[in-house]
Amino acid sequence: MADQGSEGQTEAGAGEVMSKKALKKQAKQAKKDERKANVASKLEAEAAARDAQDVSKDCYGNLPMAQSQEKTDRVWSHIKYLDSSKVGQSVLVRGRLHASRATGNMCFLVLRSQQYTVQAVTAVGPTTSKQMVRYASNVYKESIVDLEGTVSAAPEKITGCSQQDVELVVNKLFCVSRSEPQLPFQLEDAMRPEGAEEDGPQVRVNQDTRLDNRIIDLRTVTNQAIFRVEAAICRLFRNYLTTQGFVEIHTPKIISAASEGGANVFEVSYFKGQAYLAQSPQLYKQMAIAADFDKVFTIGAVFRAEDSNTHRHLCEFVGLDLEMAFNEHYHEVIRVIGDMFIAIFKGLQEECQNEISTVNQQFPAEPFKFLEPSLVLTYKEGIQMLRAAGTDIGDEDDLSTPNEKLLGRLVKEKYDTDFYILDKYPLAVRPFYTMPDPHSSIYSNSYDIFMRGEEIMSGAQRIHDPEFLTERATHHGIDLQKIKSYIDSFRFGAPPHAGGGIGLERVCMLFLGLNNIRKTSLFPRDPKRLTP
Amino acid sequence: MADQGSEGQTEAGAGEVMSKKALKKQAKQAKKDERKANVASKLEAEAAARDAQDVSKDCYGNLPMAQSQEKTDRVWSHIKYLDSSKVGQSVLVRGRLHASRATGNMCFLVLRSQQYTVQAVTAVGPTTSKQMVRYASNVYKESIVDLEGTVSAAPEKITGCSQQDVELVVNKLFCVSRSEPQLPFQLEDAMRPEGAEEDGPQVRVNQDTRLDNRIIDLRTVTNQAIFRVEAAICRLFRNYLTTQGFVEIHTPKIISAASEGGANVFEVSYFKGQAYLAQSPQLYKQMAIAADFDKVFTIGAVFRAEDSNTHRHLCEFVGLDLEMAFNEHYHEVIRVIGDMFIAIFKGLQEECQNEISTVNQQFPAEPFKFLEPSLVLTYKEGIQMLRAAGTDIGDEDDLSTPNEKLLGRLVKEKYDTDFYILDKYPLAVRPFYTMPDPHSSIYSNSYDIFMRGEEIMSGAQRIHDPEFLTERATHHGIDLQKIKSYIDSFRFGAPPHAGGGIGLERVCMLFLGLNNIRKTSLFPRDPKRLTP
Repeated sequence: MADQGSEGQTEAGAGEVMSKKALKKQAKQAKKDERKANVASKLEAEAAARDAQDVSKDCYGNLPMAQSQEKTDRVWSHIKYLDSSKVGQSVLVRGRLHASRATGNMCFLVLRSQQYTVQAVTAVGPTTSKQMVRYASNVYKESIVDLEGTVSAAPEKITGCSQQDVELVVNKLFCVSRSEPQLPFQLEDAMRPEGAEEDGPQVRVNQDTRLDNRIIDLRTVTNQAIFRVEAAICRLFRNYLTTQGFVEIHTPKIISAASEGGANVFEVSYFKGQAYLAQSPQLYKQMAIAADFDKVFTIGAVFRAEDSNTHRHLCEFVGLDLEMAFNEHYHEVIRVIGDMFIAIFKGLQEECQNEISTVNQQFPAEPFKFLEPSLVLTYKEGIQMLRAAGTDIGDEDDLSTPNEKLLGRLVKEKYDTDFYILDKYPLAVRPFYTMPDPHSSIYSNSYDIFMRGEEIMSGAQRIHDPEFLTERATHHGIDLQKIKSYIDSFRFGAPPHAGGGIGLERVCMLFLGLNNIRKTSLFPRDPKRLTP
Repeated sequence: MADQGSEGQTEAGAGEVMSKKALKKQAKQAKKDERKANVASKLEAEAAARDAQDVSKDCYGNLPMAQSQEKTDRVWSHIKYLDSSKVGQSVLVRGRLHASRATGNMCFLVLRSQQYTVQAVTAVGPTTSKQMVRYASNVYKESIVDLEGTVSAAPEKITGCSQQDVELVVNKLFCVSRSEPQLPFQLEDAMRPEGAEEDGPQVRVNQDTRLDNRIIDLRTVTNQAIFRVEAAICRLFRNYLTTQGFVEIHTPKIISAASEGGANVFEVSYFKGQAYLAQSPQLYKQMAIAADFDKVFTIGAVFRAEDSNTHRHLCEFVGLDLEMAFNEHYHEVIRVIGDMFIAIFKGLQEECQNEISTVNQQFPAEPFKFLEPSLVLTYKEGIQMLRAAGTDIGDEDDLSTPNEKLLGRLVKEKYDTDFYILDKYPLAVRPFYTMPDPHSSIYSNSYDIFMRGEEIMSGAQRIHDPEFLTERATHHGIDLQKIKSYIDSFRFGAPPHAGGGIGLERVCMLFLGLNNIRKTSLFPRDPKRLTP
């Protein structure tokens, strides 16, 4: 692999069509630095001399800035469709220069487009000049190029590329957008499988370097795959709920009062007043239920001003929220949620097979397991399993993160599932609006859902009776004035209802068996990171 | 129609099953007020006496608060499925008491569930007591009831209900959640068609009263329909783009710098620092393009701190955003956008026929017209049409709102379409990142899109060259430090790309021919409204 950062590269290569902009800039530069200008003009003269004897002079070079100058009838191919069926055809592809390797009079290139890569080769010959091969070998990695080539059967499988059976013999090569010579890190370093240290010490790219240069980091096949899985989760979530009669809604993010006591909430200046960023769409989902929408879902930004610097907390994340009126029992809602997750997991396994295995190549993980129907355990059963495993925990104690993980392992051992619903949490550890269990003073009609031992959803039957809601809010010491409009929304008849909120990034992280939520947030926000 | 607010209603009606809560509350009350307690106990005694001779005593009353007490195998029907095929069957439905009218020994009820209504009737007879009929006629409107009844053929079409061919003969009637007696306004007033003043002066509900009581307002069949149309717009937008290979992304709403000069941006306290709410996901969409996602869309909250109190501005709205790399010309992107809107409009006409006609009943509007393919005019052509109509406007002037509306009317007259794309805006009126027209110093590769003469989308080819972008930003007087990460994201190769942002609420408002954007925002936010 050529180290492109250290190799010389002619600024105005032969065959280059310079943009007005570049010319203007050059002129400016010339005024400032007479000596440099002389060198430049000398280079240009040399280039002109070379042109005269360059058989390929119209077949390579840097294109002017793409400004929608013209429309042609050229047909473009995508790298992913280049296979044996195309052998002999001339194709035009646009891609990034993923790698290049010059050997004598030849140059091997790898072109990349999203998760797909193809090898191309150019060699000095009757129709290919030395200058063209030199140009090809000097294009900086990550530049975007247009390559016209003939599809040829590969002499042997090209294991380094996604398109293994064919390669392109270059006829034309133009650079559309040039990368700077020095990348913040190499993509191959960012794509190195975890736990491959047996091959000797290798360069790795740490998380902050990745995130500081997210534009480059996101180009890895792994990241291309991760965010396609994330998109699929949203799609499957919506599709399942839509078939079940749910209506999509959009709830305001700027709210007038910090509903749950004011902790962990971001303040916003709202004209001359003060406002807050919603920590959850819950109150609005519930109002939609009181307003007769019956079953609703919403996908949107959720804000938590928690100073938590862990592998699973973000200050802004994407909430997949749903709320549903039920007839008799909130287990009707638990069933819908359980079936929805099954639809998501099955959908991912069907539609994202390639993406999942791409991610696994860099981040090996056990395949995600789940039961049909979904496993539902009671909190009491969970506590009993933990105690049987030697944990000292009281009936009404909340689950610590280590205990959640331990319980996840115990459940996996006993039931062989990475997904389960833990029902009937102690009332004491849940918010004021949670409906108490009618048959017990300890428990409540609430549930958390776990993937690989980590919480990804919290939900409950909500109190729909305004008097009782007032009583419970008072019990929790909440300022009734601040939640007046919330309570008032149940004064004109409200059906019993339940729902919950899911963290998208957590679902994606845990389904894929990743170890940090920043891997599944496109541009993560945490207490220490607000850029890019 | 009984005026339920003024009629007496027994707190503890015959047949009522009182909740523990209610009993406890009553006991408290009793201590405070001995006299009232005596009256109460007298009433209870009377109720007990009535019970003894009430043949229907187990067939009606207020249910205890629904707390998921039990699961039964009862089968529930939905009002929308009640039709002639069900005549003779006994069904159980839950709905709101939409209306009731007592006449002597009979009571007519109308039950509502979302957009569907059915009539029910109860009359004193061998199995129905006077007390039961009295109970039925005294349930407050908007209360949620469970009604068990026999489906009967209606003697004549019931024109006031969505289910016109059948009615329910009540066997049992229980109240699940009681409304307060006094509604902020009557639903029939909120549903009265606009422009029906010929029937004499009638009560109307003004916008602020509606929004202050949005929970009630949203229950009208019109609002139930509007927000189903809005959900369909999102669904059709996503489905079309997904079939075109777009990937859904989620961009951060909290950003570190107010990118476009800092005007109209909400400030957020971010831990010990300062941050802002994103006015658009544009910079992040573009970064996704620079990060190889090729074609992306995102639906999410967009924030504008504009002190605009008009019929079409909100401080928080839902943006439907897309961005796409193209090969040669940004018209490739315009074509996708045009085709996408056609797919949305056709989809709405197919999937939301009922909803559209429901909305039209209250808010009459001409059917929305569009052409296939979408009409694309140049800015220059638009200016010429305006001048021909007598408007004094310069080549590089921006379009005022009245001129946009006028142009919309002129286009409708000439081309018979409510939808068109206005291409090639003057460079001077567009943001710094807009790509100039390569063939003219006046124009740019940018476009706005209009529905019924109002702007619903703005977009452009963006500058993907970091040097040129720097030059344009400087020209616009923008602090380069503030947009450093934006500019830097194009330093490692970026394909030419274009995109745009659509206001969901505007598309919904204008497709349906509504006159105020607050009608298509579930819980609108404007400079004067931050609640509910």
